[in-house]
Amino acid sequence: MLLTDAIGYAAAVLTTASFLPQALHTFQTKDVRGISLGMYSAFTCGVALWLAYGILVSAWPVVGANAITLTLAGAILVMKLRYHEEPITQIEHTGD
Amino acid sequence: MLLTDAIGYAAAVLTTASFLPQALHTFQTKDVRGISLGMYSAFTCGVALWLAYGILVSAWPVVGANAITLTLAGAILVMKLRYHEEPITQIEHTGD
Repeated sequence: MLLTDAIGYAAAVLTTASFLPQALHTFQTKDVRGISLGMYSAFTCGVALWLAYGILVSAWPVVGANAITLTLAGAILVMKLRYHEEPITQIEHTGD
Repeated sequence: MLLTDAIGYAAAVLTTASFLPQALHTFQTKDVRGISLGMYSAFTCGVALWLAYGILVSAWPVVGANAITLTLAGAILVMKLRYHEEPITQIEHTGD
C-alpha cells in the first residue's frame, strides 16, 4: 500500500506542478495563439468544481492540489484573454 | 450528498474533456510555440501515474477519466515534439 500511496502522491504533484512551466512560458513569451481558449475555460471551471467538491467532502489534499492548479490555470486563462489581441511577436510584411 | 456527487462528476467531465479542444486546436494550427514542453511532459507522466494508481486501488472512474486524459495529453505532447521544428505559420522577411 505504501508504493500505491507514493504513486498517488507523485501523480498529484506532477499534474499540479505541470501548470507552472506553462504559466511561466506564457508570461515570458506572451504567445497565446497555440493555446486553446476552450481548454482553459473548461479546465479552470472543472478545477474550481474539484475545489468545491473537496471542501464539501472535507478532502483537504484535493482542496490543496486544486487551489494551486486553479491559481495557475486561471492565470493562463487570464493571459490568453489579455494577450489575445496583442501578440508581441507579430511580423508584418510592410511592402514589396 | 447528491449535489456533492454531481459537482464531482461535473468536475471530472470538464477537466477530462478540456484537453479535446486543445488537441484539435494544435492539430489544426500546428502552432506549438506557445505550448510548454515542460508542462506536457510532467502532466502526461502524472496522468499515467494516476492511471496506474486507479488500477492498483481498483478505482475505475479514476482509470476511465485518466485513460482519456492520457490519450489527449499524450497526443498534444507528441504534436509538440513533432511540430516543434517545422512551424507552418513561419513568416520570413525576404528583402527590404
